[in-house]
Amino acid sequence: MSSITSAKANVLVVGSGGVGTMAAFALEKGGKASVTAVLRSNFAAVQQSGFDIKSLDHGDIQAWRPSAIRNSVPNTATDATAQPYDFIVVTTKNIADIAPSVAEIIAPAVSPGHTAIALVQNGLNIERPLIAAFPSNPIISGVSFIGATEEKPGTIRHDDHDVLLVGAFANPNIAPQASAAAAKIFSDMYGSCPGIDVIYEPDVRFTRWRKLLYNASFNSVATILRMDTSRMRISEHVIDDLIRPVMLEIRATAAAAGVELPMELVDRMITVDTFEAFFKPSMCQDIEKGNYIEFENIVGEPLREAERLGVHTPALKVIYGLLKGLQWQRMEAKGLVKIPLVSEPGMKYGSKPRVVT
Amino acid sequence: MSSITSAKANVLVVGSGGVGTMAAFALEKGGKASVTAVLRSNFAAVQQSGFDIKSLDHGDIQAWRPSAIRNSVPNTATDATAQPYDFIVVTTKNIADIAPSVAEIIAPAVSPGHTAIALVQNGLNIERPLIAAFPSNPIISGVSFIGATEEKPGTIRHDDHDVLLVGAFANPNIAPQASAAAAKIFSDMYGSCPGIDVIYEPDVRFTRWRKLLYNASFNSVATILRMDTSRMRISEHVIDDLIRPVMLEIRATAAAAGVELPMELVDRMITVDTFEAFFKPSMCQDIEKGNYIEFENIVGEPLREAERLGVHTPALKVIYGLLKGLQWQRMEAKGLVKIPLVSEPGMKYGSKPRVVT
Repeated sequence: MSSITSAKANVLVVGSGGVGTMAAFALEKGGKASVTAVLRSNFAAVQQSGFDIKSLDHGDIQAWRPSAIRNSVPNTATDATAQPYDFIVVTTKNIADIAPSVAEIIAPAVSPGHTAIALVQNGLNIERPLIAAFPSNPIISGVSFIGATEEKPGTIRHDDHDVLLVGAFANPNIAPQASAAAAKIFSDMYGSCPGIDVIYEPDVRFTRWRKLLYNASFNSVATILRMDTSRMRISEHVIDDLIRPVMLEIRATAAAAGVELPMELVDRMITVDTFEAFFKPSMCQDIEKGNYIEFENIVGEPLREAERLGVHTPALKVIYGLLKGLQWQRMEAKGLVKIPLVSEPGMKYGSKPRVVT
Repeated sequence: MSSITSAKANVLVVGSGGVGTMAAFALEKGGKASVTAVLRSNFAAVQQSGFDIKSLDHGDIQAWRPSAIRNSVPNTATDATAQPYDFIVVTTKNIADIAPSVAEIIAPAVSPGHTAIALVQNGLNIERPLIAAFPSNPIISGVSFIGATEEKPGTIRHDDHDVLLVGAFANPNIAPQASAAAAKIFSDMYGSCPGIDVIYEPDVRFTRWRKLLYNASFNSVATILRMDTSRMRISEHVIDDLIRPVMLEIRATAAAAGVELPMELVDRMITVDTFEAFFKPSMCQDIEKGNYIEFENIVGEPLREAERLGVHTPALKVIYGLLKGLQWQRMEAKGLVKIPLVSEPGMKYGSKPRVVT
């Protein structure tokens, strides 16, 4: 993003659930951005009545509207009503193994060499497919600690303080200063909204690995067991047998990748959730709602990093296999997998002649 | 069991679901046993109408009754109507971590130095608590391949051929010949029923480890994912990432324990289930019914053997941790675990002062 084309930055927010709506709100309220929100299931509700927001940072807001809403990602090459975007902020889930990809979703709105793409999403290496698809664009990392949920279409409950860590992903095709500049502008633009903590970070890798400590362990095990993190802590053995070993494997992998996560972070992360909240992490909520889970970026990528770096991560490997099994069941439920009723020739594990032993 | 006290052996069958009822039926039909069946939930139904059995080995049988039924384990020391039992056949699930134990359940009916105890149950080392409780009694291993289900109280569907592998567990307190003799009598008595395959085996360890190949892998993963074994085979990755690695760890542990399971057994076991059956193994059925799961003998014991023998079994360890988490949730549902609503002093993983990082 070499320059901003108007007094206010032209920003497209893709993914307008709780996190996306609060991002759109903060960017508009900060006064430095004009936001177009891409809405899906809530488009009709918001078009008619705007957003209803109950926010611990901003109070109760009725019938709030961003500068513009759309029900699909605009094609800036062909749509004369869509000006080139200075920033695209992506707050969707990142389901790497199910099409369409994030790059495919946003492609029509990306101006090569101009649009900075901010990924406010979980996981490791999520920038790689974006750099591959848009080699000349800055890619920005956003790690969000907000708690915000869309309770019904257009109605948002924002109940945990908006803290956003922002920095540039390394894009080898463009100057590091250019990436950093885009991240700083985004950070300043978002942080101009009162009541929000935006922290600019020169090295995003530490933050992303640190968040993996939590996500690869608590988020994964919660998904497999459908268990909140407080019950895990009450049981003790779920922490001792599963959460801590996975955290230690993530820590070892991060170290091999050059990111030192202090050991005390592990202990601190175990009790990071408010006990009384009986919190179910995001993938657990997704599996219970019948959604796909973003396990490839949360577990698959650190596992592949570990294998690449020669780090032994056996617990992560089993957790990954189980999450992949759960995703496969979801794919069957959504019609992406067909189940043959009888064993068919050529099946790897079809019927074999029975040998009596 | 030094001698049998009458023309027919006096046999108590504890656990009268599908497997137990078909065992009682076979023992009676063989003509060498007089069976008392201990019934629980189906006592009233069977007292009134007997068992209704549809059996692929024995045909359709209406209103069948064993020689006697009881609604609790009789105390042979105080109950004049209960003669000492030559054999107690235990076909209950073996839930090692939830009281009462098998030893506690059968204790009132065990005559020290006389009653032979046949455990027709899954898992490893299940004889140890019985030897500890009844040091002078022979303990018999039964590995059953029957398919039999109680569809409603007193109604049994027997749809997979009754094959029983019988041998003596090693009891260091009594002569091996005495244990073997009891196992041979039991084997002969059960095998006298037409249409049944009873195989006497001098070394039961091979069979029990071999069955663990299946149970520690398929039965465990099916329980965690609620997935039938055919879908695992269709997915391929569930077999490659989870089933086969667990089987290889079981095989390595068995080898360290002196039991060589040929490598081709692993491949053969992967396709052992009839593909078209879309079979859910027993623990998966239990978790879906809201029952406790017998994971301690199926996964916990081989894991403890591996740790004792210095065998690295990381997949088994994660699988064990997850199954223990599922059992803990079941304990909560049944009121054995109380959930504090707020963090309490002294909790290992209670609330900690929040440190901003």
